[in-house]
Amino acid sequence: MATTVEPPAKQQKLDKDQARKDFLAVFEQLRDEIVNDELLDGQPEASKQWVKEMMDYNVPLGKLNRGMAVLDVVESLAGSKGGAALTAEHVFRAAALGWCIEFLQAYFLVADDIMDSSITRRGQPCWYRQPKVGMVAINDGIILEACIFRILKKHFSSLPCYVHLLDLFHEVTYQTAHGQLLDTTTAPIGTVDLSRYTLDTYLRIVTYKTAYYTFYLPVACGLRLAGVTDPAAFKLSEDICVQMGRYFQIQDDYLDCFGDPEVIGKIGTDIQDNKCSWLVVQALQRASEEQKAVIEASYGKDEDEAVQRVKSVYRELDLEGVFKQYEQDSHDELVKTIEGQDLLPQGVFTMLLKKIYKRQK
Amino acid sequence: MATTVEPPAKQQKLDKDQARKDFLAVFEQLRDEIVNDELLDGQPEASKQWVKEMMDYNVPLGKLNRGMAVLDVVESLAGSKGGAALTAEHVFRAAALGWCIEFLQAYFLVADDIMDSSITRRGQPCWYRQPKVGMVAINDGIILEACIFRILKKHFSSLPCYVHLLDLFHEVTYQTAHGQLLDTTTAPIGTVDLSRYTLDTYLRIVTYKTAYYTFYLPVACGLRLAGVTDPAAFKLSEDICVQMGRYFQIQDDYLDCFGDPEVIGKIGTDIQDNKCSWLVVQALQRASEEQKAVIEASYGKDEDEAVQRVKSVYRELDLEGVFKQYEQDSHDELVKTIEGQDLLPQGVFTMLLKKIYKRQK
Repeated sequence: MATTVEPPAKQQKLDKDQARKDFLAVFEQLRDEIVNDELLDGQPEASKQWVKEMMDYNVPLGKLNRGMAVLDVVESLAGSKGGAALTAEHVFRAAALGWCIEFLQAYFLVADDIMDSSITRRGQPCWYRQPKVGMVAINDGIILEACIFRILKKHFSSLPCYVHLLDLFHEVTYQTAHGQLLDTTTAPIGTVDLSRYTLDTYLRIVTYKTAYYTFYLPVACGLRLAGVTDPAAFKLSEDICVQMGRYFQIQDDYLDCFGDPEVIGKIGTDIQDNKCSWLVVQALQRASEEQKAVIEASYGKDEDEAVQRVKSVYRELDLEGVFKQYEQDSHDELVKTIEGQDLLPQGVFTMLLKKIYKRQK
Repeated sequence: MATTVEPPAKQQKLDKDQARKDFLAVFEQLRDEIVNDELLDGQPEASKQWVKEMMDYNVPLGKLNRGMAVLDVVESLAGSKGGAALTAEHVFRAAALGWCIEFLQAYFLVADDIMDSSITRRGQPCWYRQPKVGMVAINDGIILEACIFRILKKHFSSLPCYVHLLDLFHEVTYQTAHGQLLDTTTAPIGTVDLSRYTLDTYLRIVTYKTAYYTFYLPVACGLRLAGVTDPAAFKLSEDICVQMGRYFQIQDDYLDCFGDPEVIGKIGTDIQDNKCSWLVVQALQRASEEQKAVIEASYGKDEDEAVQRVKSVYRELDLEGVFKQYEQDSHDELVKTIEGQDLLPQGVFTMLLKKIYKRQK
């Protein structure tokens, strides 16, 4: 493998900004293709405008980590083949697949926000809260998902990986919807039953609801694009990505309570919202009867004092320390798995891991 | 082609009941496969139960015309090849594809009912109106759609038509969502603007929202299953099915106002609901200024007197006669197109046409 010299921080930042800009340019192309889709020949202007506005509002305004990861994976794989430069076509395809992931996420977020009665998303009102939208957002979600398959058809149907990409998106959609269902049935709105908040249940929800589409999907897209077909490579990626996805969500739960709101850009509400968070699962495993009683009396209540009481128990149980230990163990185990295999270049996974390890937001 | 003697009405009824029973048996198999899907290995019992109940509630309780049409198409195609008997495997596949169409419809109906704030569907409360469901129905819709691709993967992925079936379901989903969007943007909830109710707009909504998934999808599924690949055969089918779908929806609109509630099983509310119905489109084309004023003052009002005033205008304009004439013309034109081609056996289309021509419900 080629040795690379790390560029200085300023250069890294410039490269990152450029990569984001390039990625966004591909979005504009894909969006315009969809707006002028021949399958809807003669579409009225009002309908085109709606679809364009709806896509601009819901698809490109996130962190784009998932979408941009596909190119990272493809680059890691190409590097391992002797550092062969990627053609412009390869880069475009990686970006287009990345956007398919971002469309999938947009689909889920539009739906989740309605189900959770959320108010804001990515710093703006949730789409369904726009006065002219309302429940029509459900159909917009259907359109967002359908766009994935329009993009795949236009740009990938001539490739041998086409049918595998279709299967992949179907499977991950199915898994994510199952995770959402588990989440809903574990903590039905309006009920508080902490006995359901076990570690097994927690890990299953997190795996299906987040890990598959956030980590496995970009990696598997990259592998398919690079022509990888060995089932063992996909199984290995699945195992590593599921572990990474769990770690990622556990961090998220930790930051919701212990992160700096200035840094993460929002004030956590998992306690008020009765969320099946890793912290409450850990607390319930360790709490004395008295502490359990405090949690049961105060969890899921939208009162500042109740929230503070729960946080006090978390501090008494040193959940910050428990998290730091988990973080270290999980990281070490991931590195061991990544270094202990020779099916895929380590960069495929270490590049993802570096982005999330000890993140503050 | 073999000459067949028409069986007597009683035998026809028995055959129809048996066909429905056979079709429903395939649903039970597919449903059980989904409930025990290996992709969700280790799924908790509560989640399995939810999915089973949700499918039973939403998928098999309709008229099943769309789903059962796939087998009719496959039989017509096989008949033309010298009446070769279909194997049990062929019949099962036709039924499974038919169920994919019924799952797709269930997905749309669950979503539509939320968007339209509907109360009942197929004689029972809409799924989202079940107290334990509510907005979780949106995720159930996502699961219903995902089931289509689980069924296709399990039972069709080894066939050459697999990728074409995936493309077909994607395209029709996209077209239907587009039709729904057009419908919504043409008559936004809470607004009345009859100038938007033109025949062009009406036909476009009906084509995309109904014709593709109701008529073209079963026919195209049957063609794919029978191994047809000639693009001209699909184009011809599309043209005929779109025309048939328009005719079907126009009947629906007619029956909503002029049908016998005892026979159609519901009381029409298109006038109160401000629907872009074929009748109001025809009325607006023919009305005097005075009649137009009546429609504009009374359409979309949930008052019996307003509804009666609109119906009076419909009667003054003899819309029953206009419909009967359209029905005859449309039927004659369809027959001419069907008889004027030799790409596909006529039975593929005449069998569909016979089911809807002059229907009373």
